[in-house]
Amino acid sequence: MEESERYQRGWQKLKEIDGEAGERVIESLRDIAPDFAKYIIEFPFGDIYSRPALDLKSREIAVVAALTALGNATPQLKVHIQGALNVGCSKQEVVEIIMQMAVYAGFPAALNGLFAAKEVFAEREDAA
Amino acid sequence: MEESERYQRGWQKLKEIDGEAGERVIESLRDIAPDFAKYIIEFPFGDIYSRPALDLKSREIAVVAALTALGNATPQLKVHIQGALNVGCSKQEVVEIIMQMAVYAGFPAALNGLFAAKEVFAEREDAA
Amino acid sequence: MEESERYQRGWQKLKEIDGEAGERVIESLRDIAPDFAKYIIEFPFGDIYSRPALDLKSREIAVVAALTALGNATPQLKVHIQGALNVGCSKQEVVEIIMQMAVYAGFPAALNGLFAAKEVFAEREDAA
Amino acid sequence: MEESERYQRGWQKLKEIDGEAGERVIESLRDIAPDFAKYIIEFPFGDIYSRPALDLKSREIAVVAALTALGNATPQLKVHIQGALNVGCSKQEVVEIIMQMAVYAGFPAALNGLFAAKEVFAEREDAA
Amino acid sequence: MEESERYQRGWQKLKEIDGEAGERVIESLRDIAPDFAKYIIEFPFGDIYSRPALDLKSREIAVVAALTALGNATPQLKVHIQGALNVGCSKQEVVEIIMQMAVYAGFPAALNGLFAAKEVFAEREDAA
Amino acid sequence: MEESERYQRGWQKLKEIDGEAGERVIESLRDIAPDFAKYIIEFPFGDIYSRPALDLKSREIAVVAALTALGNATPQLKVHIQGALNVGCSKQEVVEIIMQMAVYAGFPAALNGLFAAKEVFAEREDAA
Repeated sequence: MEESERYQRGWQKLKEIDGEAGERVIESLRDIAPDFAKYIIEFPFGDIYSRPALDLKSREIAVVAALTALGNATPQLKVHIQGALNVGCSKQEVVEIIMQMAVYAGFPAALNGLFAAKEVFAEREDAA
Repeated sequence: MEESERYQRGWQKLKEIDGEAGERVIESLRDIAPDFAKYIIEFPFGDIYSRPALDLKSREIAVVAALTALGNATPQLKVHIQGALNVGCSKQEVVEIIMQMAVYAGFPAALNGLFAAKEVFAEREDAA
Repeated sequence: MEESERYQRGWQKLKEIDGEAGERVIESLRDIAPDFAKYIIEFPFGDIYSRPALDLKSREIAVVAALTALGNATPQLKVHIQGALNVGCSKQEVVEIIMQMAVYAGFPAALNGLFAAKEVFAEREDAA
Repeated sequence: MEESERYQRGWQKLKEIDGEAGERVIESLRDIAPDFAKYIIEFPFGDIYSRPALDLKSREIAVVAALTALGNATPQLKVHIQGALNVGCSKQEVVEIIMQMAVYAGFPAALNGLFAAKEVFAEREDAA
Repeated sequence: MEESERYQRGWQKLKEIDGEAGERVIESLRDIAPDFAKYIIEFPFGDIYSRPALDLKSREIAVVAALTALGNATPQLKVHIQGALNVGCSKQEVVEIIMQMAVYAGFPAALNGLFAAKEVFAEREDAA
Repeated sequence: MEESERYQRGWQKLKEIDGEAGERVIESLRDIAPDFAKYIIEFPFGDIYSRPALDLKSREIAVVAALTALGNATPQLKVHIQGALNVGCSKQEVVEIIMQMAVYAGFPAALNGLFAAKEVFAEREDAA
């Protein structure tokens, strides 16, 4: 069944990229909007992230940049800083991407992105 | 002299990434805000893009993503779609980055990014 | 007196839509910007919400959508999720409006809107 | 086949809501990003707009509000002003929704929304 | 009558600040949303700009900064660059305000603000 | 050495405007992105704020307006409300600037700006 394949492919991709942080997001939707949890797995992860024409590291660079620039989705930025590290970015590369956003979205956006990265890096140290 | 080095390094970097489109931006500022032209060369290009810890292709992926997501700077997005192609992204990779922004900034932002890319790709064909 | 009518009409409308949450916002402004409290009652509520050409339920659908999409005013979004429920939206309808914003403002905006709704729904359960 | 059902359901829904304006958007993507055209039909229209728990008129109220507030997607706002009129909003209701955005996103956003509506209303008169 | 006083005070203030450009905005609303024209005169100009606790030059500095930073309301930015010049800002001061937005909203926002200023300055030369 | 002069000039300017709050921001970057701390001192403060063509009070009016309007950088808004008070704005003037943003970015942006100001004013009272 086609749909089920999208879901399964998406679920694998979500776990590969976002790990436990991604699973917690899905879990937190179960009572209020279970269909939205299903859509997240199917469309962003099953359709978009699964496309072969761009590697996952490049995709996460794009997402960390965009969420830093938009500046209104800190929890998702933190999940994707994790994601970037999970798929091969170094901490220094994450810092570089966020710093570059000072040019395109202003210094406050970059500052808040750096503080989010600082928290994520500390959590990973604690978990290590 | 330190400042002059930043300026020269920045000017080389701007030409490498944005080519003629970048030079035209600088030129268009000469009468209204010449110091701002100088700052653009020195800070974004002389300081940020010249940092060795992230390659230029990754930097342009980040910028195309952010400008697509912000959605309020189409001229600059077009310059950086050119920039991305100039430093090694394929057209398909540019399209993938922009499509991915549908997930993070909505379908209208991605649509408008794709239309900007379509214009840039056509201009390059004409120039070829 | 004309102004006094606007104020009285606005105050009734604010209580009808936002209930105690709205009154608390007004109260919180008394020391720092009492005139701004007056303007809120007069213009948004006395002028705009009091216009007969669109029903209150439709107005709250519009506001929940806009605040979810903008994503930078969570306290006000929560007040208006309350407002939407107060003027006739079901919880499921609120969830649908917010989910739809994934298409127009991205999945993070919709996610954060759903988490705001989850908090508001829980508060109402506790108050029941 | 599940996917094909989503696509067919989405295509019908897109034509019902956005009419020819929607079809033109899809057509304009055929050369640059045909898969994105497919995703637009499948996810926003096949999945979201097809959900029965909120009527189409309410969905279009939400979208016109959000796109007016975001203010960076005028072509899409115009398509959805058409859409709102197509699924049962009166011109006056569209004007009310946009005016209300002055409160939540500022007077410039509302002004630009009204000017977009003015253009759409004029086009429909011409086409009548 | 209180309301009429607000309207008259607002109309005088709008003409003082925005001059003919402001009158044209009001005129352009007469057919589609005449009440919105009235609200613009009454609330922003009759209430806010008429408050004595901040001078008009400081108010226009604030507005040029905000509209440059938001970046999605170019027509209104141009009206207020006119306004800033009308109430005592020099061209150089306008340029400084816009340049400063590079720090808080990014270089593209500042660039687009400078290009808007360039157009306004040229129009004033032509009209002189 | 040119660079060192920019740094020293910037550091003096940062202390003059933002005081201890600014120094804490710089300090907080030392471990994660020391170069970004250096850039903040050099470009915004050493280059932009040090330009003589606009006084510091006008610059802080512009920044408080922009950060209130953008609405996604509360910590930086609070630092600059402090900054505005440090370089000569009265509390009432700060309140007026923020209130005016209701017109250009909506009432929620202005409300959240006023609540930020309320916190800053309280902290200053406590420190007095």
